[in-house]
Parts: sequence; structure tokens; C-alpha cells
Amino acid sequence: MAEFEAIAKQFVEFYYKTFDENRANLAALYRDDSMLTFEATGILGTAAIIEKLQNLPFQQVQHRTDTIDSQPSADNGIMVMVTGALMVEGSDRPMSYTQAFQLKMDGGSWYVFNDIFRLVYPAA
Amino acid sequence: MAEFEAIAKQFVEFYYKTFDENRANLAALYRDDSMLTFEATGILGTAAIIEKLQNLPFQQVQHRTDTIDSQPSADNGIMVMVTGALMVEGSDRPMSYTQAFQLKMDGGSWYVFNDIFRLVYPAA
Repeated sequence: MAEFEAIAKQFVEFYYKTFDENRANLAALYRDDSMLTFEATGILGTAAIIEKLQNLPFQQVQHRTDTIDSQPSADNGIMVMVTGALMVEGSDRPMSYTQAFQLKMDGGSWYVFNDIFRLVYPAA
Repeated sequence: MAEFEAIAKQFVEFYYKTFDENRANLAALYRDDSMLTFEATGILGTAAIIEKLQNLPFQQVQHRTDTIDSQPSADNGIMVMVTGALMVEGSDRPMSYTQAFQLKMDGGSWYVFNDIFRLVYPAA
């Protein structure tokens, strides 16, 4: 496995584990120039991103990742695309999602520069 | 609409129109440093990417885009994530897909630097 793939995999596992345990701790993965587009809503910066994630209309959620693909990207970053399913409290139907990240290095640690999330509905 | 959004939308429309009409013409959108990860298979450079796309196990395909999200990305690029459905010849069942691109500027025109494609199967 190439180094960028190992970093992407480790990032994705940590990201969703943290999301499902305590979303507030995701703050460590963003910076003030981080962008999140969550179901078409655009949000800039750590504080606003964490506020958005904490105010999603569910308290408990479990993510399952089905695929993790990554590539080296511009400016020594890593582009990551995930597909998977999430299960929220009070529902017995998992929902498919896809999420694309661009990771950048900042002072020796990786952070999320770009983040785009979408639920994926059945095609037919 | 911000300029990067307009560029992303125009790119996505042109990309799938070209894909569905004559895949070989997609060569104009890639460069020798372009990366494609297609269903986990990694491919580098225009020639290899076009060969891969031309040898997919269907001759006729129609893409439908359901969502197009974009953000400014590192190195003055644009990150784009698409969700949609594709219908291949001989099947009456559309399949969901997601595709993430990073566009870069080269000599006044945009090209695909990163490209990750995945079919998305129903979650449950």
C-alpha cells in the first residue's frame, strides 16, 4: 500500500470513529480555512463546521465505510473518496452516502481542507 | 453562483455529454499526469485512461447527474463531487454512482488532475 493510501485509510477510520463517538472532537481535523459542503450547504472554518455537525437532526449515528479510494493531489495533498452507509437512531434503514475529502499537511499533521458530503438515494 | 461553481457545472455537463457520445474525445480533458481510480483500479495518464474508458464492458451508456457540488481547492484548483445514475445498454436498471474530480488549470484551460469513480450499491 502506498503511503498516501495508508494515510487516507487511517484518516477515514479515525474520522468516522470520532464522528460516531463525539462529533465535537472532529474540531482537531479542521482548520479555519476548511470547507464543508454538507447536502449542498456550504460552511467555512472549524467552528461553523463543528456547529453544523453537532446540530444535525440525530444524536446517535453509526457510519459504515464500504470503499475508500485515494490519490495524491495538488500541493502535496491527498484526495479521498468514501462510499458507505449510515444508520441513525430511530431508523432501521441504513442510508447510502458518499464523501470526498482533500487532506492538506499543516505543521506536521494532516487536516481536512475540502469536505463534500451527500446522501445517495437509490437510482430507480 | 460563484465562478468555481459555474466552471464545475459546465465541466460536469461537458464531461458526461462527451462520455455518452464518444468517450475517445474525453482525451482533451486529461493530461499525462492525470490520475483515474475506476472501481479501485488506478490508471495514470491520458492514453491509459482513455483506453480504460473505451474498454468498459458496454458500448452505450447514459449518465444522469443528480447533484454537483464544488469547492475551491489547493493550488487554485476546483474539487467537484457528482452523484447520479447511469444506464447501460441491455439493462433497464439505472445504477447509482459517485465521482470526484479535482480540476487544475493548464495553459488557460481546465483539465482533470484527480478522478475517482465508484458505483454505489443500495445500503441495505
